[in-house]
Amino acid sequence: MLKLEMICTGEEVLSGQIVDTNAAWFANALMEKGIEMSHRVTVGDRLEDLVAVFQERSQTADVIVVNGGLGPTTDDMSAEAMALAKGESLVENTEWRERLEGWMQRYGRMMSANNLKQAMLPASAVMVDNPYGTACGFRVKLNRAWLFFTPGVPHEFKKMTYEQFLPFIAEEFGQSEVVGLKKLLTLGHGESRLGDQLERLNLPDGVTIGYRSSLPYNEIKVFARGESANAALGEVVDLVKHTLGDAVVSEGHPNLAAEIHSLMENSGQSLSLAESCTGGLLASQLVDFPGSSRYLQQALVTYCNESKMKLLDVSANTLDSYGAVSLETVREMAQGVKNLLGSDYALSTSGIAGPDGGSDEKPVGTVAIGLATPLGEWCQMIQLPQRLSRTMIRSLSCAVAYDMLRRALRGEDPIVEYPSVRRTQVWVR
Amino acid sequence: MLKLEMICTGEEVLSGQIVDTNAAWFANALMEKGIEMSHRVTVGDRLEDLVAVFQERSQTADVIVVNGGLGPTTDDMSAEAMALAKGESLVENTEWRERLEGWMQRYGRMMSANNLKQAMLPASAVMVDNPYGTACGFRVKLNRAWLFFTPGVPHEFKKMTYEQFLPFIAEEFGQSEVVGLKKLLTLGHGESRLGDQLERLNLPDGVTIGYRSSLPYNEIKVFARGESANAALGEVVDLVKHTLGDAVVSEGHPNLAAEIHSLMENSGQSLSLAESCTGGLLASQLVDFPGSSRYLQQALVTYCNESKMKLLDVSANTLDSYGAVSLETVREMAQGVKNLLGSDYALSTSGIAGPDGGSDEKPVGTVAIGLATPLGEWCQMIQLPQRLSRTMIRSLSCAVAYDMLRRALRGEDPIVEYPSVRRTQVWVR
Repeated sequence: MLKLEMICTGEEVLSGQIVDTNAAWFANALMEKGIEMSHRVTVGDRLEDLVAVFQERSQTADVIVVNGGLGPTTDDMSAEAMALAKGESLVENTEWRERLEGWMQRYGRMMSANNLKQAMLPASAVMVDNPYGTACGFRVKLNRAWLFFTPGVPHEFKKMTYEQFLPFIAEEFGQSEVVGLKKLLTLGHGESRLGDQLERLNLPDGVTIGYRSSLPYNEIKVFARGESANAALGEVVDLVKHTLGDAVVSEGHPNLAAEIHSLMENSGQSLSLAESCTGGLLASQLVDFPGSSRYLQQALVTYCNESKMKLLDVSANTLDSYGAVSLETVREMAQGVKNLLGSDYALSTSGIAGPDGGSDEKPVGTVAIGLATPLGEWCQMIQLPQRLSRTMIRSLSCAVAYDMLRRALRGEDPIVEYPSVRRTQVWVR
Repeated sequence: MLKLEMICTGEEVLSGQIVDTNAAWFANALMEKGIEMSHRVTVGDRLEDLVAVFQERSQTADVIVVNGGLGPTTDDMSAEAMALAKGESLVENTEWRERLEGWMQRYGRMMSANNLKQAMLPASAVMVDNPYGTACGFRVKLNRAWLFFTPGVPHEFKKMTYEQFLPFIAEEFGQSEVVGLKKLLTLGHGESRLGDQLERLNLPDGVTIGYRSSLPYNEIKVFARGESANAALGEVVDLVKHTLGDAVVSEGHPNLAAEIHSLMENSGQSLSLAESCTGGLLASQLVDFPGSSRYLQQALVTYCNESKMKLLDVSANTLDSYGAVSLETVREMAQGVKNLLGSDYALSTSGIAGPDGGSDEKPVGTVAIGLATPLGEWCQMIQLPQRLSRTMIRSLSCAVAYDMLRRALRGEDPIVEYPSVRRTQVWVR
């Protein structure tokens, strides 16, 4: 098996000033191609540390992706360290120098000594093109490994991974297997429960199932390696969906907001929201998508009771008799916001997100959710574990609300059982 | 200097299924104590890889924090790997076994073989207490290094860092220097510009300044090492604030929502929001804080024009003559939402977050922001760079809006210059 490693450079990554998202992204991108990483080192901007790590890891690995340290400033020293590690000099790469000069000319800027530095590569390096920035990549063979140098700027790194690195790996190591991947998003079922159900399935050779927790969801990845496995992928996905039933809430989308957006965007239907405990989170997650203005008419964060009464026509009597966190209140909130502009659909939430504000009857984590559609009204009260953070209670409430709307949009019963979400009351009309 | 390294274990960290936030948190926590990390390795759950990395890094480092792999399942193998690396056996730690038994008894659960595994430590290990979970930590001396094993569960890891690891370092290596740290949050000034201004300052010995980009903000950290430096810290912070002027928008808070929350929470004043392009993000960031219901009355995400007219009383004439993204519209939005419940303060936003919807006159990134206070009304139109993402345009718009409110709450002129944010129009009454 190909031994692939990664070396991440940069003081700001090592010192935690920035979280190393390039590393996580890269490992994921490889995994989706069926390639595993076995080891990752993160080092700062000290020349001797870089030289040592290049020399040491090249004894073990077949390929090492080095990320960062290709910029124009003095703390960018990947090329220099590589030359030292191999005991060779830095040599100007004419092709890249000319490319830089062309750019500078086009933008009317002078070539500085710092810019020139970006064309200096170890003598034995093979230049790797980067059409998106001033830092070229390069690769050098040391001991048993190819060290493949990539820029730290995320979008440049991603492009180079797909356009240069993966083709290189395929060519050099024959890693060109057919690999298929389908993702299913689940809600309300723990990972171990999902695992128990799927373990029993008889999967074709080359098909494997992976899990990824992406709170409040669990994502299921179905991989197929090889041509025959890939041909069976659709069938396996259908089997998984059949086995998990209502647990699967989206195919291919990373969260339910994306699923709702895709269902509503070209539907010609309209949506209004009335939020209390979710406090703008339902709206904000939809507004994140360009084009959400085609269906989202308004979202009213009616945080105080006065606002619920004045804007949404929730009756004082309802608030007095049942409280703000009740099926009755969310029903009136949904109906109220739906009526304002005559929207086709409306969602409402009201709950106790904590850490204070709970009572014996309605502890922290109690959330009422309402849905109004052209066909009727559905309300449910859920009881989330009190140990969850305020943020988690809010985001799980959004997910359950979106799932009600999703099911209604697909003509299904909006209310279902989630094994890991306790429901205390339901109201349907 | 103390050579401190970290080894992160776990397939899910290596494979990018989860981003390694423990590593970033830990590096940051150390930095705030004036301790630097020099090297970090991430390995998966393969026994031989763990053994190799323990043996190898212990030749170089003084202390190695190992994170993860202390759980009860078969893929948790940090203790076993450490025993192998040192050539000794695993021995049951009686103290921890009794602790586990006590717990199990209290919760009426049976002790399983898997649980017992968590009391098996390398023969020469010193047990490290963990009152928050079933995995104890431990430390072992190998070659020149102390390897210090910590649990992967984030809150257990954080507690152990503060309660066990830092005291151990102080005791063993005399790292008990007085270290002070103050953080200042800035908005609208690039890091290089901040650096240029602060470079000229004459700082006392032992005081250093660091930068951390935390978009849309830049955070400035003023460190003091040693007693005399620490005594001068307050004075240096004042000097930095004086030098940077309006750029500093908060002292000690990580973002402007937190600053607004702390200013409003006990003020007895009320706030309403009317959001268009920010789409619930202003509200959502405030609702994240428990206690926000004390001042936040409501937030209306009036995404379509009809909703702006019906709910906020924005006139059709204004929308026709000036458009939804205009000083006139945000002024009427702020006034409209303020009047609904007679709030003391109101903020409003309307802009083009992209990637579509821009025009020559109002390109993507054009955002109008309105503020109404008991003293008057302030509106400004800003032009953010078109290359920014939709998410970034929305979050930068929120930051500028919050800053207007913050300045008003402090009795300052709500509108100021931000060198990196272009302003195109202003309206004040």
